Amino acid sequence: MSSIWNHNISVSIFGESHGPAIGVVLDNVPAGEYIDMDKLSKFMARRAPKKNKTSTQRREKDMPQIMSGFLNGKTTGTPLCAFINNTDTHSQDYKNISKLVRPGHADYTGALRYSGFNDVRGGGHFSGRLTAPLCFAGAVAAQILERRGIYTGAHILEVHGIKDDAIDSIIIDRDQIVKMRTAEFPVINEAKGAEMIKDIEKASSFGDSVGGIVECVSINVPAGIGSPIFEGLENSIASLIFGIPAVKGLEFGVGFNCARMLGSENNDEFFVNDAGHIVTRTNNHGGILGGISSGMPITLRVAFKPTPSISKPQQTVDMSEMKNETLNVKGRHDPCVVPRAVPVVEAAVNIALLSHMLDYPNF
Amino acid sequence: MSSIWNHNISVSIFGESHGPAIGVVLDNVPAGEYIDMDKLSKFMARRAPKKNKTSTQRREKDMPQIMSGFLNGKTTGTPLCAFINNTDTHSQDYKNISKLVRPGHADYTGALRYSGFNDVRGGGHFSGRLTAPLCFAGAVAAQILERRGIYTGAHILEVHGIKDDAIDSIIIDRDQIVKMRTAEFPVINEAKGAEMIKDIEKASSFGDSVGGIVECVSINVPAGIGSPIFEGLENSIASLIFGIPAVKGLEFGVGFNCARMLGSENNDEFFVNDAGHIVTRTNNHGGILGGISSGMPITLRVAFKPTPSISKPQQTVDMSEMKNETLNVKGRHDPCVVPRAVPVVEAAVNIALLSHMLDYPNF
Amino acid sequence: MSSIWNHNISVSIFGESHGPAIGVVLDNVPAGEYIDMDKLSKFMARRAPKKNKTSTQRREKDMPQIMSGFLNGKTTGTPLCAFINNTDTHSQDYKNISKLVRPGHADYTGALRYSGFNDVRGGGHFSGRLTAPLCFAGAVAAQILERRGIYTGAHILEVHGIKDDAIDSIIIDRDQIVKMRTAEFPVINEAKGAEMIKDIEKASSFGDSVGGIVECVSINVPAGIGSPIFEGLENSIASLIFGIPAVKGLEFGVGFNCARMLGSENNDEFFVNDAGHIVTRTNNHGGILGGISSGMPITLRVAFKPTPSISKPQQTVDMSEMKNETLNVKGRHDPCVVPRAVPVVEAAVNIALLSHMLDYPNF
Amino acid sequence: MSSIWNHNISVSIFGESHGPAIGVVLDNVPAGEYIDMDKLSKFMARRAPKKNKTSTQRREKDMPQIMSGFLNGKTTGTPLCAFINNTDTHSQDYKNISKLVRPGHADYTGALRYSGFNDVRGGGHFSGRLTAPLCFAGAVAAQILERRGIYTGAHILEVHGIKDDAIDSIIIDRDQIVKMRTAEFPVINEAKGAEMIKDIEKASSFGDSVGGIVECVSINVPAGIGSPIFEGLENSIASLIFGIPAVKGLEFGVGFNCARMLGSENNDEFFVNDAGHIVTRTNNHGGILGGISSGMPITLRVAFKPTPSISKPQQTVDMSEMKNETLNVKGRHDPCVVPRAVPVVEAAVNIALLSHMLDYPNF
Repeated sequence: MSSIWNHNISVSIFGESHGPAIGVVLDNVPAGEYIDMDKLSKFMARRAPKKNKTSTQRREKDMPQIMSGFLNGKTTGTPLCAFINNTDTHSQDYKNISKLVRPGHADYTGALRYSGFNDVRGGGHFSGRLTAPLCFAGAVAAQILERRGIYTGAHILEVHGIKDDAIDSIIIDRDQIVKMRTAEFPVINEAKGAEMIKDIEKASSFGDSVGGIVECVSINVPAGIGSPIFEGLENSIASLIFGIPAVKGLEFGVGFNCARMLGSENNDEFFVNDAGHIVTRTNNHGGILGGISSGMPITLRVAFKPTPSISKPQQTVDMSEMKNETLNVKGRHDPCVVPRAVPVVEAAVNIALLSHMLDYPNF
Repeated sequence: MSSIWNHNISVSIFGESHGPAIGVVLDNVPAGEYIDMDKLSKFMARRAPKKNKTSTQRREKDMPQIMSGFLNGKTTGTPLCAFINNTDTHSQDYKNISKLVRPGHADYTGALRYSGFNDVRGGGHFSGRLTAPLCFAGAVAAQILERRGIYTGAHILEVHGIKDDAIDSIIIDRDQIVKMRTAEFPVINEAKGAEMIKDIEKASSFGDSVGGIVECVSINVPAGIGSPIFEGLENSIASLIFGIPAVKGLEFGVGFNCARMLGSENNDEFFVNDAGHIVTRTNNHGGILGGISSGMPITLRVAFKPTPSISKPQQTVDMSEMKNETLNVKGRHDPCVVPRAVPVVEAAVNIALLSHMLDYPNF
Repeated sequence: MSSIWNHNISVSIFGESHGPAIGVVLDNVPAGEYIDMDKLSKFMARRAPKKNKTSTQRREKDMPQIMSGFLNGKTTGTPLCAFINNTDTHSQDYKNISKLVRPGHADYTGALRYSGFNDVRGGGHFSGRLTAPLCFAGAVAAQILERRGIYTGAHILEVHGIKDDAIDSIIIDRDQIVKMRTAEFPVINEAKGAEMIKDIEKASSFGDSVGGIVECVSINVPAGIGSPIFEGLENSIASLIFGIPAVKGLEFGVGFNCARMLGSENNDEFFVNDAGHIVTRTNNHGGILGGISSGMPITLRVAFKPTPSISKPQQTVDMSEMKNETLNVKGRHDPCVVPRAVPVVEAAVNIALLSHMLDYPNF
Repeated sequence: MSSIWNHNISVSIFGESHGPAIGVVLDNVPAGEYIDMDKLSKFMARRAPKKNKTSTQRREKDMPQIMSGFLNGKTTGTPLCAFINNTDTHSQDYKNISKLVRPGHADYTGALRYSGFNDVRGGGHFSGRLTAPLCFAGAVAAQILERRGIYTGAHILEVHGIKDDAIDSIIIDRDQIVKMRTAEFPVINEAKGAEMIKDIEKASSFGDSVGGIVECVSINVPAGIGSPIFEGLENSIASLIFGIPAVKGLEFGVGFNCARMLGSENNDEFFVNDAGHIVTRTNNHGGILGGISSGMPITLRVAFKPTPSISKPQQTVDMSEMKNETLNVKGRHDPCVVPRAVPVVEAAVNIALLSHMLDYPNF
């Protein structure tokens, strides 16, 4: 199904950017899990448009209302449905979109896929706004996992070629993850972050946009979850990550750099540590071997393309008349989706991990 | 399910490296499709160990026997099962593996996942040998797709930092794809290929291994297949690609390079071409927008880590006694999996495309 | 997943009887299908509590609000979500339920399944009220199917041993089906219907309830949809029908009566009719052979148990104190669910048929 | 997918009656489960043709060869694949089938579904022979469940109107179940069994066949497995049972008889028994409430139609020439499938129960 992720838990996402509401149904979430709504709101707020020039000027509360599966502050075990009303919609900004297909956007492909019947206002079901219900799901999953010690955090690794320091997964701990997540602009190296903000604002001032990379880590995932072949942790995470608009690449551990390495460099040697646990000295494998967690931190990086909606004039096609035209995109758009994508990547990883954890004997 | 890929078609893979047989069941393949067994054998042969020093010295016919779903040279529409006998197994090479976990391998994680009951001989169900049934499935899919004009081909883009020329997806055609696929060592730039072979042999002579990247392209995929969110072409392809052992990364179109680009550079402008079709001038998007094919060639790259089984001594752990040990891996191993992985990547892409094509109205 | 039916289309049901809202997400519904909301409301109204003594005195508009997947009167092809607010809830009626488990109800089994965290008010997610979103889904499916000539209708075949005439599937036509569906109390033989109503009222007057059977027929389903083994029409219909609370049995064609027949009596002989079509003279097979439609009307019967919530005193257990107690159920309950179950059975059949029809080449 | 049952475990069935082999892949079976092959063979033998006149004269060893997922007598946790070679095939008996469609068979519907490309010899993938791999899967599941005290057994409740005594699920115990299963012709009342055999032989002597009912019970299923709506035990069992050829009906507990009962008769009152467990005095609900096990024995009945292949002349159609013809079926057929269907029903129930049990916290 297009908008349902089916695994041990399932995530069914619905809604269009300018319809009455968007939302999500989470099925098979464990019963009796306390969900701190304040904490959940903070997670959602990290995805909401920023109050600075790095993001769209669209303002919405985006606070989810829970319609089912939740009673007295706890999950009931039956489907957990949340919806988010669409309130601040400016549909008139999109008037000329249905005819002129935006480069880099799904206007053209969506029109073919749905024979022109899909709601194109604000990107419709293809809008980045649909990551809000994904964040709700991820925020719920995160709370359930954190109660079991599993923490996931992400930061902006790169924006338009400007690089933050990479996560050192061997030494990162819970406090560093929590700190990274609470930043307004989540980077490890503040100076680099300032440089990125400046670059985004510059691109924005020219009516342009920039791409970047989000890096994510999960600690304390017990060894032994996931399966070989099609149900490895990588497969599950990938099937969610590629559900986030604008993603063009995903890598685990050293990722594409492994193409420049020898086996003797890349292999992570095992040893029994002082606590009597089997661990590896390095973490090139990113915490996953044969699709299964090794107990080492899970690390991954996600590439996001520059926001396709730029205000610079672009050559494109009028689908209804099949002729070439010049497009001037209006509407409010993020000059860079990466800052707002940080919690979305965390959400996807949390969902995958919770789903696999349900197979864990001592969950 | 661990070893079943469920989509419009399903692929169920079974077997262990040193068990009686490995195989695959393909469900919901269209009825009445002629399968040229000779052509299929040639596809399989591309994955088989090479007769040179770039791969394992293990020799097997690896020719699949079809057990069901096939009559008078055509698919019947009911489950298509093929199996491949394991004949040339040297299980004694693996005697010390069950105690000493191999770095970079799934020995440790698999033992935890299956409480020590999994068959570890030759990697068992985690073995790269399990890509043979995947190739069978992909070879069947390829023939069905090629009958409809859709051709997929891949080459070795990089080995241990040595780079082949990249595919130019704007100009590549069927003949170039077929030529690329028939090469003994599939590269575009022969000189670079020779350099790679030399590098692999060098690593091999030191008992080491190297990683690399496979680049793949599919042409003539009609615009409009795939869906937003969780059932995009990227999600489907990713869920299969990460089922190939040793994969650490996957990117589409410009991939991770989009993190260094402006929107105005990355967006592919549309225009109506001389034939009256809507196309893009550039193909940074790699043929997929919003999870849906644009009609442009689909391009992707897959990173493979260096073969973890190297003959250099490595530090590791004896799981049964929980103590640190030195491991000397025996057995026959590819010093680089990339050459043999080329058809496996094609297979995965063909399976995903055929599955999505079943939704196409004019299939 | 508990509350998602995954097939070519998927149906995700959420909500609890006394929560804020119940609803449904339909995924993969074809794009561009006009939905007549007035007609849809009439379908929903058939399931709503009747204004006579045969059903609960609970009164609710139960009119669904569409939140997504619908624009300008037509489906968009993206997830179609509908909400139904819960307004007329009397939760105080259920105060003693959480302690005393109601015989014949899911109070006991639900408490074990969800470790006591599930919402028990009004039956929670187990409530017959959750058939309202199923009816929404079925009403949408019915409109799409009727546009292609496929009509489904059901009637009350039996209530507490009083039998209506059976459907003659060989002669039934569209007009008879439409007429049957528009009746206040849908029976073929009005006299028998009057007798049933009297019997239900009598049982109700004693604080008791009665069971019954719904019989359903679908005409003009093209021959050749469905598949052998696990994806036959019977399997799909069964997986939905057993999702309706209170169902205890399901049979197709002659059903259990085939246990009293010879092969020569049961086999339906084929012949080429005057219109040049292959049909059968009799329809003991109920329109399905080998899981696949034969083109003959699809017939089935569903057994519903008497409403477990009766006001007669019953012996039961106080789970919290593990002691035997006497229960007096309060609250408003249908003395017989069968009349309101008629459109629910139709809904389930329409959903299954639409889903299989998506595989039909000329859909 | 047509021939894959996907749940916590999955069952993928392949093969045609007269192809090289039939078989099954079981995915996600727990690791480390000892499988007694002798016991498994005995289970399979119960489905094999009987050495008397109640069944086909086809003789096959039907002993499965395990190809994967099994080592040192135990499951490995990876896919368990078993093959059964087809040896005693008389394809010439089926020569005229491809033109004249057999009444009551899937010849006509299968030809439409697969555009005439399916293997029709011996019924191909529609053959009752495909229940052999289902029995393999069920026999494996049964051994895993019995180790946890869960026993399932079935008997012939009715053949051509002759009725055996019904199972008394309140008193039945493990010994009675085991005894029932070991009988050559599994009935409770031997006199009735003798009468049935006589009736089957009589029908056979006239070239005719008879239908019947199988009744099945499972004891010691813990309370609390299964889920509401679409993943109840009834839904799961139904989705498997309707995968058995010739099934026309399925009911749980009192089943269709509930249509003749009052709520006060049908409700099973709870009480705390001497052992301190919550149980019910009667078992009209058949061990399932709201889709979830109550801890009481699970009871169900399955109706099987008379074997459609009878040797009496029948009117039918020549599909290739679209004209009416008389058919004389040759080949070896069971005059009644019910005796051989007994272990098949048990197999289906065992598979469903094992799959749900994987969710049980203390499994």
